[in-house]
Amino acid sequence: MSSPRRNLLGLEGVSAQEITDILDTAESLKEISSRPIKKVPTLRGKTVVHFFYEPSTRTKTSFELAAKRLSADTVSLSASTSSLTKGETLIDTALNLQAMAPDLIIMRHSMSGAPHLLARHIPCSIINAGDGTHEHPTQGLLDMLTIRQVKGRLDGLKVSIIGDISHSRVARSNIIGLNTMGADVSVFGPNTLLPPFVESLGVQVAGSMEEAIVDADVVMMLRVQQERLDDVLFPSLREYAQRFGLGVKHLKKAKPEVTVMHPGPINRGVEMSPEVADGPWSVILDQVANGVAVRMALLYLLIGPESS
Amino acid sequence: MSSPRRNLLGLEGVSAQEITDILDTAESLKEISSRPIKKVPTLRGKTVVHFFYEPSTRTKTSFELAAKRLSADTVSLSASTSSLTKGETLIDTALNLQAMAPDLIIMRHSMSGAPHLLARHIPCSIINAGDGTHEHPTQGLLDMLTIRQVKGRLDGLKVSIIGDISHSRVARSNIIGLNTMGADVSVFGPNTLLPPFVESLGVQVAGSMEEAIVDADVVMMLRVQQERLDDVLFPSLREYAQRFGLGVKHLKKAKPEVTVMHPGPINRGVEMSPEVADGPWSVILDQVANGVAVRMALLYLLIGPESS
Amino acid sequence: MSSPRRNLLGLEGVSAQEITDILDTAESLKEISSRPIKKVPTLRGKTVVHFFYEPSTRTKTSFELAAKRLSADTVSLSASTSSLTKGETLIDTALNLQAMAPDLIIMRHSMSGAPHLLARHIPCSIINAGDGTHEHPTQGLLDMLTIRQVKGRLDGLKVSIIGDISHSRVARSNIIGLNTMGADVSVFGPNTLLPPFVESLGVQVAGSMEEAIVDADVVMMLRVQQERLDDVLFPSLREYAQRFGLGVKHLKKAKPEVTVMHPGPINRGVEMSPEVADGPWSVILDQVANGVAVRMALLYLLIGPESS
Repeated sequence: MSSPRRNLLGLEGVSAQEITDILDTAESLKEISSRPIKKVPTLRGKTVVHFFYEPSTRTKTSFELAAKRLSADTVSLSASTSSLTKGETLIDTALNLQAMAPDLIIMRHSMSGAPHLLARHIPCSIINAGDGTHEHPTQGLLDMLTIRQVKGRLDGLKVSIIGDISHSRVARSNIIGLNTMGADVSVFGPNTLLPPFVESLGVQVAGSMEEAIVDADVVMMLRVQQERLDDVLFPSLREYAQRFGLGVKHLKKAKPEVTVMHPGPINRGVEMSPEVADGPWSVILDQVANGVAVRMALLYLLIGPESS
Repeated sequence: MSSPRRNLLGLEGVSAQEITDILDTAESLKEISSRPIKKVPTLRGKTVVHFFYEPSTRTKTSFELAAKRLSADTVSLSASTSSLTKGETLIDTALNLQAMAPDLIIMRHSMSGAPHLLARHIPCSIINAGDGTHEHPTQGLLDMLTIRQVKGRLDGLKVSIIGDISHSRVARSNIIGLNTMGADVSVFGPNTLLPPFVESLGVQVAGSMEEAIVDADVVMMLRVQQERLDDVLFPSLREYAQRFGLGVKHLKKAKPEVTVMHPGPINRGVEMSPEVADGPWSVILDQVANGVAVRMALLYLLIGPESS
Repeated sequence: MSSPRRNLLGLEGVSAQEITDILDTAESLKEISSRPIKKVPTLRGKTVVHFFYEPSTRTKTSFELAAKRLSADTVSLSASTSSLTKGETLIDTALNLQAMAPDLIIMRHSMSGAPHLLARHIPCSIINAGDGTHEHPTQGLLDMLTIRQVKGRLDGLKVSIIGDISHSRVARSNIIGLNTMGADVSVFGPNTLLPPFVESLGVQVAGSMEEAIVDADVVMMLRVQQERLDDVLFPSLREYAQRFGLGVKHLKKAKPEVTVMHPGPINRGVEMSPEVADGPWSVILDQVANGVAVRMALLYLLIGPESS
């Protein structure tokens, strides 16, 4: 990258050139995972700390594999087993971690802005692995990598994001990143789950499933999170599936070569029918594979040999 | 092995030649764990995923050491910390894991047949580390390795398995494996804990402790699992110890050089008296040491340099 | 070290020469953590087991980084996920672990003396990472390393330890180690939380904060443990902070270049005011950094190339 960055806290403020560099690097590192010996010595002797205040197996495993395939050493702290946090401020915890000389902290936290707080107090590199309802930038990047692989470009594509927009850090990072790359993003979901002034993010708001999907190149379904189901703002699962679930019939309104995405794990029959999930338009498992590649790229760019 | 296999889902269907090959390989790899530098580069760059839906420290640690001594990279997912499983089908979880390009998944699951389900849907190698009450093939193999070391052979030996036969995947894998290798297996335990038609597995059912142990070369005691104690079919601990616990007096009925085994952890004073557990006939700790060797052998044979 | 030791179970009985050797080794290994490639191959192929019956992220992470920077292989067992312990005696658990051929077990246990019990039954090296209210020798060593770095020596210094002396294994290891090294240790805390016959440990008991701090070279504050707050012997947090908390005003009574320490995590406003924690006298983060160095030194000395 022309101006080397230290952190990835969000896609806000990341330029199109930087995103392109990250995706290009991911593309070139992806091949390592298909070798018989899936390991290069690039990050030997680097210390990567997984610091997860929220449970996450999927994202954490993806980061761990990325780190190990680049030969970094990894240690994991999790909120449930963590005595780091007993009575201690987040800043003190960060300073303590820093004293152990990590090269990179990968942080997930239920509080929006937590990784930014860390970054203001410690010099080591930080990757935001999801902060509250704010951003999940590596998910945004892996989604963009997946779209670029299928469509050959991001610029000018129509991407529809459907579901609980309000609480989705996946939606936010995708909206920001896709806008930066020149895609044309629209959103649809329960009215109660659209953030106020959502248009100010630079998206169109669709009035119906049909409007959302017409002429879409990409349909990105958001996960229904169990913890939202008790929320008065949330429809019943059955109503949700009927009104906001994706079926084959909807896809007929989209572009012929429409691509369907989902950040996983899928609730089959809720966000989409099994036919949609398993159909030729689905790139859900490509997203997972690209997750490892994008995370390898970020580790490489942030703390690799060319980072300083 | 003559026809290289991809998985080890159970000892059912594994030939005597294959079992011999696995045990021979374990024998030759065992020496690595006694070196000052307990590590060979054989599986460098291979990714081994420990995927445990049931808690297990003992088996998991054994597999982890086996993987690390062969230089494989390991990541662990466990049900308790796993968000992989939220609302997701087991098959979707498997496909997601597969997308991260592991070479081998080591799986424990409370549902009999779960590893077989995985194996039908994903191409990576799978080792069953215990599925429900079905099989625990690496335990069967390490037990056979231990017996072969002590007795010089398996063929023609009289092996008595004593305890809760119904719920024991250890018993099942041993019965199948020992039968394949030509041993003569008999079982004994509470009547309520003998599976119906147990003779169809190719074993004798003994009518008393004495009958079970007379002329035995090997007595294998099964662990009393705490979760069974609430079961109406299970005797009280005290009654169990009196009627099914192994004492020195019993061993006098066995062959002079009788060998006593237990998969661990022992409930001292329940399955056997301390004198039995610590006596010269006990090979319980050899079983543990052989566990690492057998697992190294399987990793080597399934994903090592000669596997493809 | 002149007579190589196998274990570090406590600072009791460790000579001044040995402590000096450990601190000197830590000093020379510390530099590794500031290299771009923080890794040396010294312990390649050694197996280090973290066996923690009490939760600990801070100490465990420090040991893990120490092991990884020396290229050892690590596996972790914790009480919460451990099936090693179901119904099994600690000695049986130890013998089982030993059968897997570890080189070193790092053990934390709520029972004072647990690591000593292990050491009597198994031949592999053991480091006590905190046993009940008994000792936490690596904390004592990292504290002494930190003092020696700041003051240039330990001999003849006045060190005041303030807080819950009764329940603090940190206090105990420091008292023993500092006495061995010729420092002059005094303690102060709630009367109910001073062990009876505390003078027999070779310390002065101060009658007031002022008396404790007058002319002190080093003030070491102990952590208030949440679990003690329900104890009738423990004052309220507010009373504790007023009577036993360290403020800037207290430090004016100490030596001009006084050093303030705390084992972490700090309860700001309880054991000390934020001004004290963040002031020029604080070496709290140096303690953390030295923790990794001291643990690297112990791994090196106990199981490294010169250990046998």
